[in-house]
Amino acid sequence: MASSSTFKTLFVLILLWILLPSGHQHHPLDPLTPSELAQIRTIVKGWNPGSTHNLTFQYVGLEEPDKPTILSWLLKHPTKTPSRQAFVIARVDKKTHEIIVDLSTHLVISDRIYTGYGYPLLTFEEQTAANALPLKYAPFIASISKRGLKLAEVVCESFSVGWFGERRRSKRVLKILCFYLDGTENLYVRPLEGITVVVDLDDMKITEYYDRFVVPVPKADGTEYQASKQKPPFGQRPKAITVVQPDGPGFKIDGHTVRWANWVFHLGFDIRAGPIISLASIYDIEKNTFRRVLYKGYVSEMFVPYMDPTEEWYYKTYFDAGEYGFGLCAVPLEPLTDCPANAVFMDGYFAGQDGKPIKISNVLCVFERYAGDVMWRHTETGIPGKVIREVRPEVSLVVRMVSTVGNYDYIVDWEFKQSGSIKAVVGLTGVLEVKGVTYTHTDQIKENVYGTLLAENTIAVYHDHFLSYHLDLDVDGDDNSFVKAKLQTTRVTDKSSPRTSYWTVVKETAKTESDARIQLGSDPAELLVVNPNKKTNVGNNVGYRLIPGSSAASLLSDDDYSQIRAAFTKYNVWVTPYNKSEKWVGGVYADQSRGDDTLAIWSQRDREIENKDIVLWYTLGFHHVPCQEDFPLMPTLSAGFELRPANFFESNPVLNTKPPKHVVWPNCTTKVQ
Amino acid sequence: MASSSTFKTLFVLILLWILLPSGHQHHPLDPLTPSELAQIRTIVKGWNPGSTHNLTFQYVGLEEPDKPTILSWLLKHPTKTPSRQAFVIARVDKKTHEIIVDLSTHLVISDRIYTGYGYPLLTFEEQTAANALPLKYAPFIASISKRGLKLAEVVCESFSVGWFGERRRSKRVLKILCFYLDGTENLYVRPLEGITVVVDLDDMKITEYYDRFVVPVPKADGTEYQASKQKPPFGQRPKAITVVQPDGPGFKIDGHTVRWANWVFHLGFDIRAGPIISLASIYDIEKNTFRRVLYKGYVSEMFVPYMDPTEEWYYKTYFDAGEYGFGLCAVPLEPLTDCPANAVFMDGYFAGQDGKPIKISNVLCVFERYAGDVMWRHTETGIPGKVIREVRPEVSLVVRMVSTVGNYDYIVDWEFKQSGSIKAVVGLTGVLEVKGVTYTHTDQIKENVYGTLLAENTIAVYHDHFLSYHLDLDVDGDDNSFVKAKLQTTRVTDKSSPRTSYWTVVKETAKTESDARIQLGSDPAELLVVNPNKKTNVGNNVGYRLIPGSSAASLLSDDDYSQIRAAFTKYNVWVTPYNKSEKWVGGVYADQSRGDDTLAIWSQRDREIENKDIVLWYTLGFHHVPCQEDFPLMPTLSAGFELRPANFFESNPVLNTKPPKHVVWPNCTTKVQ
Repeated sequence: MASSSTFKTLFVLILLWILLPSGHQHHPLDPLTPSELAQIRTIVKGWNPGSTHNLTFQYVGLEEPDKPTILSWLLKHPTKTPSRQAFVIARVDKKTHEIIVDLSTHLVISDRIYTGYGYPLLTFEEQTAANALPLKYAPFIASISKRGLKLAEVVCESFSVGWFGERRRSKRVLKILCFYLDGTENLYVRPLEGITVVVDLDDMKITEYYDRFVVPVPKADGTEYQASKQKPPFGQRPKAITVVQPDGPGFKIDGHTVRWANWVFHLGFDIRAGPIISLASIYDIEKNTFRRVLYKGYVSEMFVPYMDPTEEWYYKTYFDAGEYGFGLCAVPLEPLTDCPANAVFMDGYFAGQDGKPIKISNVLCVFERYAGDVMWRHTETGIPGKVIREVRPEVSLVVRMVSTVGNYDYIVDWEFKQSGSIKAVVGLTGVLEVKGVTYTHTDQIKENVYGTLLAENTIAVYHDHFLSYHLDLDVDGDDNSFVKAKLQTTRVTDKSSPRTSYWTVVKETAKTESDARIQLGSDPAELLVVNPNKKTNVGNNVGYRLIPGSSAASLLSDDDYSQIRAAFTKYNVWVTPYNKSEKWVGGVYADQSRGDDTLAIWSQRDREIENKDIVLWYTLGFHHVPCQEDFPLMPTLSAGFELRPANFFESNPVLNTKPPKHVVWPNCTTKVQ
Repeated sequence: MASSSTFKTLFVLILLWILLPSGHQHHPLDPLTPSELAQIRTIVKGWNPGSTHNLTFQYVGLEEPDKPTILSWLLKHPTKTPSRQAFVIARVDKKTHEIIVDLSTHLVISDRIYTGYGYPLLTFEEQTAANALPLKYAPFIASISKRGLKLAEVVCESFSVGWFGERRRSKRVLKILCFYLDGTENLYVRPLEGITVVVDLDDMKITEYYDRFVVPVPKADGTEYQASKQKPPFGQRPKAITVVQPDGPGFKIDGHTVRWANWVFHLGFDIRAGPIISLASIYDIEKNTFRRVLYKGYVSEMFVPYMDPTEEWYYKTYFDAGEYGFGLCAVPLEPLTDCPANAVFMDGYFAGQDGKPIKISNVLCVFERYAGDVMWRHTETGIPGKVIREVRPEVSLVVRMVSTVGNYDYIVDWEFKQSGSIKAVVGLTGVLEVKGVTYTHTDQIKENVYGTLLAENTIAVYHDHFLSYHLDLDVDGDDNSFVKAKLQTTRVTDKSSPRTSYWTVVKETAKTESDARIQLGSDPAELLVVNPNKKTNVGNNVGYRLIPGSSAASLLSDDDYSQIRAAFTKYNVWVTPYNKSEKWVGGVYADQSRGDDTLAIWSQRDREIENKDIVLWYTLGFHHVPCQEDFPLMPTLSAGFELRPANFFESNPVLNTKPPKHVVWPNCTTKVQ
């Protein structure tokens, strides 16, 4: 007769067999699967038997194996995958717990109470609960009534509160602002200005309430963006257009490993970062091997400060990744519109507040991009009697996520080129955050309104968007250096040349972190990450170049509290030595953070970065002065940067890449729907 | 009986009837037709009966009617087209003539001898003749023999000589440099370094010859770029991919007028500028009218200075538009590779050196671009119980030319967006100009070599590319102002806000030209061209914003002779009052110019530019530090800028534009070739 404990063990084993994914072996960087998330929930709940009703999962993500473990796994692959672990941030009895769960032993292997400043990511569930509170709160109902508005048309949203030098530790609170539908579904453009509700999330109750003034709610007319709500005259409808690949896509996705042309990389998903590109390597035909480029790339933080110091607006200094979850806010991508017809989609999973797995369908798409561009070309007419023309069209691979953080939609692209470039582009669209005012015409405005009057009673407040990318480049190996190749004007004063000036390149290798902080636009320089231990045949250091697009750095003063929290926005470029714990440039606990765990703080140690495993942090910025075209919904505004091989290859790596075959459509009965 | 003169008149009339285009009426900005070019030739030759053998046509282009004439024609259209005139720069008996020909009266209405500094565009014919001279020149043949090379494998090319402060007026000369094929058709990477031939173009003979040193000719191996010459292993061939529009293109081209979506513009072609966009207007649904945006846009000049002060290289400071003709160097576009499958092509015509019309097939292409991007989108989850998702894919219209100025290929795109944006992008590809050296490894280099060692014996010299765009914006009318909207940090010191800083916008309207010279990257500012006489309903000035991409300004010293000639590269932005004669920022006569007819000189007058018809000049720059990937042919490197409506429309102009229909392919028997 089996004892009770033997029976229990057998049960657990069967359960495991059901829950664990069969068939394909995990890549050690694969995001947590639904069954793993379920397992984590069981383990964590089992670990806190007394507090189940007070336990919320604020973040559940993969606790990655150490970098050497990953690299050695990759080298000896296929072999046993390193044990799977998860990092959980939970709130248990109003305390923040950092829990590490081991999925092979089913044990909590560490549980630490975090006592520092700042709070973890906000869950959807607690925001939803908080948003519902005003609608049953008598003073709020009275405010709505006073304004002659219908309560049923009011919807509320959650806004993080920031930190403004308060010494006393604040409770875990949100501010709730409300909006008015009544004839539109574009809620953000109809703010109930003047009303602020403060909700304590741990007690889930309203702790403060302000109704400071009444201004008109901007009108609903002209604010709808849905096709079904539009009225004629319509803009000219573009003719049907699509991308076609009759032989199917040129890439293969095996689990989370993407192989395309000369690239291979791992594509993960995290509710904080969104897409995570790992282990991107490029095949070098000449060397007949894959060579490492990017160990890891992701959006570490996004800082969105608004520029209105008044009572209702001063605190709007959002950390979209650390507060709201850039991946958590990812929306299902719509086939044929969000991604072209030749896209392949991937689902994403995360743990809900109760720990149960939740799916985001189509959270990422992967597609080959053909925009009619030219990869390289030349027409040669210099040889008498001959005309040579060689043209290679550009086909690249794009990985896309769209994250809708409340009103704003961020289109996040990673683009891989056959030539070895990796481009990151972010597109901003969606709805502006606007402020209700009494003004209906700019002539009435005699004070600073901190924004643009976009429509009657509607000011779109000036703001910035700063996206900071973690770029752990491992250019042809772990140890790299950061080089500023400065372009310096040289005067010719000795009559040795008819020229009186030219520029030359003076390369400076950054020794320590302070050498590598750069505000773009100051001095002309090429920025390179090189492998000082690898040279090309003719002796150049193997490297990759960072090509910034148009960018911006923060204009806030250094002692501004929001700037202290988002100190990474002070420079566009930082370089640090690799440190597994340094992931989130605004700190692990960004909500109400006080700037004690930021890139700027880590970097104060001024560590050595020459010929080390280094991480490049690039911050892309937009200063946004809204204009009327951004209303009621803004056309996409994009910016990005490129990592481009610079003496990484011996020569043009796409010289002998054959162009794609031409497509001919002889017998199509096409339909346009 | 008909008299002889009656007979002659009849003959001329019949000839005209044959030569003149029938059917479609000329747009006053249409480029000269082949028959018009033939007519001009006849008229100019008839005007110079004694000098026919010494008459060369260096430039023949449309002499545009004055701006008010064009605008009034446009307003009263259709009406009689203003009389067609041509501007001819001819060399007659070693003198430069500026001739204006009237095509309706068949008369030369003005013939002026130009006596200033500088020479007109180089013709292909004279370059070809000059290039052939060394091959029959005994000292050159001896130099080739001395190097043990085969004369039959030598090809020579023409290089403009610049100006370096010489007081004496130079003759009209070129320097001829030669290259070695022998196993490659990529001639530029095999220079015969050390040999310089100077050719007097008027006498078409060698006037100076230098063979100063011998260095190895870089090897041919690995320099071929033609598919037919490649050896395995090959790069992975991309899967077939194409763009399909089953209902055909969404644009219409009537003569040179292009209509697409909400845009209409005239697309001209000029051998100096390449494509010329004129009279671009956008339809405003709300106002039910076309509104003017860009009276004219084109590349006014391209300056390409190399950074090597040594004897064989110092003079390489090319003006690709003014010396070589940016349009003259345009190459026929290859369908399916240079432009996508849905492109429509236009031919271009120019006058050869003898004045006879020459066709460039497919000199421009026009296509709708669909890259899988998103024009605007939003997902709304903030309304309880609802999920709203609206996505509009981005389809834009591209006009493309490729100009191959010797070794370099420039892909010049003008992109129109439904949202009102006009983007200009230039892609650089083709072959680098390299210098033969003795070095085979960087370890051997102990001096400044002014470039990167790309391969054995091959230095790619540092250089810049500066493209200056003439942008005659007429934002909703003639009179516009240029506004710098400076983003200024404001400190909060009075405890009126928990914030300690924010930024605000301080608008400065440029009064005179000196107020509008801007080096990008200095201070954060939005740059706007506004119509101070037009306001939106809520009172914002109607405007367009210039959004620079990554750019560069010249690093040469102000007193450098090349910099004096290309003084427009000192600032990225200049604004001038409209002046019909101010077209070419490096001067009408760029070859050997001395900087006395440049944008910087015109602008010294510091004219008033507020509420005037103004022209924006934007210079796009690349500092090019070559890398091995650029060898033997460089992958495209792009940069550009955007003109984006800013309070031009009352609201998002593409809000109610219906998305293109979806394409479904039910019964295709596709073939891939």
